[in-house]
Amino acid sequence: MECLKAPCKGIVNDIRGRSQCYKDDWTCAFRSGIGILAPTTYIFFASALPVIAFGEQLSRDTDGRLSTVETLASTAICGIIHSIIGGQPLLIVGVAEPTIIMYTYLYNFAKNRDGLGQELFLAWAGWVCVWTSLLLFLLAIFNAGNIINRFTRVAEELFGMLISVLFIQEAIKGMMKEFSVPKSENSKLEHYQFHWLYVNGLLGVIFTFGLLYTALKSRRARSWLYGTGWLRSFIADYGVPFLVVVWTVVSFSGPREIPSEIPRRLVAPLAWESTSLHHWTVSKDMGKVSPTYIFAALIPALMVAGLYFFDHSVASGLAQQKEFNLKKPSAYHYDIFLLGFMTLLCGLLGLPPSNGVLPQSPMHTKSLAVLKGRMIRRKMVESAKESIRKKASNTEIYGKMQAVFVEMDSSSHATSVERELENLKEVVLKGEDKGDNKKDTFDPDKHIDAYLPVRVNEQRISNLLQSLFVGASVFAMPVIKKIPTSVLWGYFAYMAIDSLPGNQFWERILLLFVTPSRWFKLLEGHHASFVESVPIRSIVFFTILQCVYFLVCFGVTWIPVAGILFPLPFFLLILVRQYILPKLFSLHHLRELDAAEYEEIVGAPRLSMDSPSVGSRELSDSEILDELTTRRGELKVRTLSFREERHGQVRSTYKVYLTFIVIKSFHILF
Amino acid sequence: MECLKAPCKGIVNDIRGRSQCYKDDWTCAFRSGIGILAPTTYIFFASALPVIAFGEQLSRDTDGRLSTVETLASTAICGIIHSIIGGQPLLIVGVAEPTIIMYTYLYNFAKNRDGLGQELFLAWAGWVCVWTSLLLFLLAIFNAGNIINRFTRVAEELFGMLISVLFIQEAIKGMMKEFSVPKSENSKLEHYQFHWLYVNGLLGVIFTFGLLYTALKSRRARSWLYGTGWLRSFIADYGVPFLVVVWTVVSFSGPREIPSEIPRRLVAPLAWESTSLHHWTVSKDMGKVSPTYIFAALIPALMVAGLYFFDHSVASGLAQQKEFNLKKPSAYHYDIFLLGFMTLLCGLLGLPPSNGVLPQSPMHTKSLAVLKGRMIRRKMVESAKESIRKKASNTEIYGKMQAVFVEMDSSSHATSVERELENLKEVVLKGEDKGDNKKDTFDPDKHIDAYLPVRVNEQRISNLLQSLFVGASVFAMPVIKKIPTSVLWGYFAYMAIDSLPGNQFWERILLLFVTPSRWFKLLEGHHASFVESVPIRSIVFFTILQCVYFLVCFGVTWIPVAGILFPLPFFLLILVRQYILPKLFSLHHLRELDAAEYEEIVGAPRLSMDSPSVGSRELSDSEILDELTTRRGELKVRTLSFREERHGQVRSTYKVYLTFIVIKSFHILF
Repeated sequence: MECLKAPCKGIVNDIRGRSQCYKDDWTCAFRSGIGILAPTTYIFFASALPVIAFGEQLSRDTDGRLSTVETLASTAICGIIHSIIGGQPLLIVGVAEPTIIMYTYLYNFAKNRDGLGQELFLAWAGWVCVWTSLLLFLLAIFNAGNIINRFTRVAEELFGMLISVLFIQEAIKGMMKEFSVPKSENSKLEHYQFHWLYVNGLLGVIFTFGLLYTALKSRRARSWLYGTGWLRSFIADYGVPFLVVVWTVVSFSGPREIPSEIPRRLVAPLAWESTSLHHWTVSKDMGKVSPTYIFAALIPALMVAGLYFFDHSVASGLAQQKEFNLKKPSAYHYDIFLLGFMTLLCGLLGLPPSNGVLPQSPMHTKSLAVLKGRMIRRKMVESAKESIRKKASNTEIYGKMQAVFVEMDSSSHATSVERELENLKEVVLKGEDKGDNKKDTFDPDKHIDAYLPVRVNEQRISNLLQSLFVGASVFAMPVIKKIPTSVLWGYFAYMAIDSLPGNQFWERILLLFVTPSRWFKLLEGHHASFVESVPIRSIVFFTILQCVYFLVCFGVTWIPVAGILFPLPFFLLILVRQYILPKLFSLHHLRELDAAEYEEIVGAPRLSMDSPSVGSRELSDSEILDELTTRRGELKVRTLSFREERHGQVRSTYKVYLTFIVIKSFHILF
Repeated sequence: MECLKAPCKGIVNDIRGRSQCYKDDWTCAFRSGIGILAPTTYIFFASALPVIAFGEQLSRDTDGRLSTVETLASTAICGIIHSIIGGQPLLIVGVAEPTIIMYTYLYNFAKNRDGLGQELFLAWAGWVCVWTSLLLFLLAIFNAGNIINRFTRVAEELFGMLISVLFIQEAIKGMMKEFSVPKSENSKLEHYQFHWLYVNGLLGVIFTFGLLYTALKSRRARSWLYGTGWLRSFIADYGVPFLVVVWTVVSFSGPREIPSEIPRRLVAPLAWESTSLHHWTVSKDMGKVSPTYIFAALIPALMVAGLYFFDHSVASGLAQQKEFNLKKPSAYHYDIFLLGFMTLLCGLLGLPPSNGVLPQSPMHTKSLAVLKGRMIRRKMVESAKESIRKKASNTEIYGKMQAVFVEMDSSSHATSVERELENLKEVVLKGEDKGDNKKDTFDPDKHIDAYLPVRVNEQRISNLLQSLFVGASVFAMPVIKKIPTSVLWGYFAYMAIDSLPGNQFWERILLLFVTPSRWFKLLEGHHASFVESVPIRSIVFFTILQCVYFLVCFGVTWIPVAGILFPLPFFLLILVRQYILPKLFSLHHLRELDAAEYEEIVGAPRLSMDSPSVGSRELSDSEILDELTTRRGELKVRTLSFREERHGQVRSTYKVYLTFIVIKSFHILF
């Protein structure tokens, strides 16, 4: 194996590559000025909320040994370290659900063992972290990052689905527990009488579903028809944390007669209380753990190291997708090495370790992409319009636009800019060659969006700032403790449901419920490319196999102690994918179903009832009548817009649309 | 006025017209066989549920003097009378919200008056009904039905909006009352202790929103992607009553410790109890009312008569829209006369009167339209396909299809069939004239849906049967009483929200929230025709005027006793529309905004990001990125489908689509 022949080579290359642009990482940020705060706050909320929710889950599962204080502290410390000396600064680190699950297994194992018990739990977890960090160092040194591409979409999405299901499970468990007395509480207290318990439970149901519904609605705000652009952006980006605040405020609006403990709120010690300060003594306690248990810690460590290795690298990969056009080099090996170091540190401090998180990492890159793109675009459009006004030739127009682009985007070389702007150039210049043909006239607004490459503001400040904010929120615990736990269960459900669209495994499961005669409706909307290129039979067989494997993985998590081996089926899946699946499916189909990229085909919408799609025999009369009737019972009269008196907007919309179609149709038909 | 010159002429003409087809009304039904039960049960549920809900509202507002038993009985009796001797059998009658509101005012007036009080309330209401029926007789005799077309969309939709708002108000009042002790109840009972009241209230909130959300989701089931056709049809048609049953069952699933009175359920006496039998004595009590009050009853009677006149005629009109291609004549004048008779009967029995209801009446016609259409279509398609297989000429194909059509649709004359099938004939024969041109080849499946006229099974059985079912449900009160009241409040909210889309007043209010730069997005979807033909400024001004007038109408309903005059602003609106509005708006704009038909223009969807619509400068980078990213953070790769290897479905879909576009585009551009 070539990996073993050149130890440390990957790490050294990474350090060399990133140290060259290290200074630029910092200076780049100041160029955006105060504008850098927008992605910063956006990612801060997107990071902090899940960490708070995970903290509550951890607190419940470890009887309060670890809580929100620890998860926030770990996220902050690791985030600060990574942003300053990490390889890829666009990667966001934080405490993730697999860590919580692992720690739950560790606690359940430790609390009933004689040599450990609750007191030495954190010390033993520290040993697990020591072993994990050693394994991560080994993986980094021996360039294991090269095998990450064997972890294909099949495995990634299965894992994503498992996490979603575990979130839903968490939400349901949480909602049910609202109806009963918490474990170590005195059930004689007034607010634990049956009727108040029931009130607490009902309020829990209302808040959970309330947050879930409103949060899901707010996500698509950017493409709403109503409201100003600013309002829609605000709701889309900050809607969820805002709604958590709103529901928390609502939870305080009950009548006076209700005991103040209802609804139940987040439980965590304050950062300066004695339970928290205990963490500084964990490393001392590590000496008290007997050697048997120290070596036993290797088994969970193997699982944790494997999980962290994949999670960290996949998150880093998604934050650096090629469509983002990142200029600075990646640093997979070095980041794994640093992850080992951070895990060691967290273990010694008795904190749950952090690793690269999804979807915050690509969200981070996306939020930084918008910033630069918008500024460049605005200038280019202005420059083009001015040139058009001055009746400049198309070559001049393009030249001016290129100049603006290069000027604003100082990190690119002229030749790569030339290559990327080639498409745009073609369109602009084509207008000149073909004469004054209306169809090919270059319209800045129309053409620039499609051809502008994405540019990302690659810097370290946003990551550092958001980690500092997370650290500051540790000291805001008195405020955080006011959040009702039911709101957090709703947030878990929201995280689960929000991550499903885009998971092709989920989409294929849904396809199982589309009868073959309804397939035409699928083609009308945007659909994944495998819908067209792989026969339905293969899709169904593949999906059912994946479901069965998923149920096996999920079943493993239910086993009391050995459940800690739940990552094992995922490691095995890599071998299954490489050796077994190619025997069951053709290579072509496998490549489509297990595509590296998310390929989508644009839908072919029906313009009107006059052009039913193929297979319209399944569009029943009632369905047509349904669509053509209002709720009052009136039948609608539908026409195409061809009024002579409205020259402006509509005619040109149709002209653009039609000319596009005519061009494409010639392409397709001939 | 010509109306006054020929009294009874309208009624006589109606009777003459309908008596000719009276026998056919009955025999027609038997031709569909058992299939007639589908529309029957569909309309039964659509009628009965609102009537049950209104009964609960009435019971609360009249301290139990009238309840669900009375509303169901009235609907059943009037429905049976109307189906047997009514003019237009497609019209559904039942107790409607305006009647409930009127009776509430009457009760509030009567209960505090010395000469009336609670005991003579029904007797006095009987006098109101007597006056109302006299006024309706006068309106029918003097052919007032001719002025119904002065009641334009503006007034209809304002009224519809008022009803929706009153429904929402009812739902909110109901939900809030769940948190407090009902009026005439003993507040010392155990289940009225604060905590149980609060539990009742919280359960009420959960059930109300639960039914609302699930019912709204089920309405569009027919166009779902998932599930078989049978399942989707079932959910779309019977989903709401099914969900009422489901939520009622759920309401029984609480823990044992909860008192059985929680959640609160429907309150009504059984049909054979003494309180109900009291109704037979109401006519005797009518003699006890003093002459002052008898004459005072004229004022509410004027309002009720006007309301009934319009409601009944508008419902009848919508059930007979010209797109339904009804063959049998209308009978507006006679139906008003019969309504007067039914009102008299109800008043003497102490029941709230019934009148024509929306949206059940056009829903009834629509459900009967599907039945015949599907059967005819299937036969025509089969016949055409067989002819094509035998390579018959296009004239032969058309001839065979026409023969099938005439045979199945025995109520039409050959000449009218010829006229209606002209469009279809043109398409079929055009293929022959132009040779074997691919674009114009007649494809049965593709063309028949657009050109097939709607056929409706006009008969009386479905109406009679559903009224009998409603009558039977009076005796099913022990079951109906198990429905929790909170489920009914949810049903009120559902009725309100479900009626808003299609109400152009509501749609114009929503348009006020679309910023001008977002207008292009509106044009992408289906939009009302006035969006293109009337300047935004006029639309806004018109809508604001309508809102102000609406607030005045709504404000009137809040006035304690004089609120009974709330129909007056609507009668005034007719004059406003005729004389004042034409001074403020151009005739052309007024005709568009106050259109008789619901005109919609088909949207011009963007096929891909490559063809942004006009004004795309407002489609921000973030919005584009949002659409192109999955929730996991992956960027989608979008293409058009032009794979060479998939000849079948997709290519032909695009071919059909493209040829249609090319044809239409030539039409538009040249």
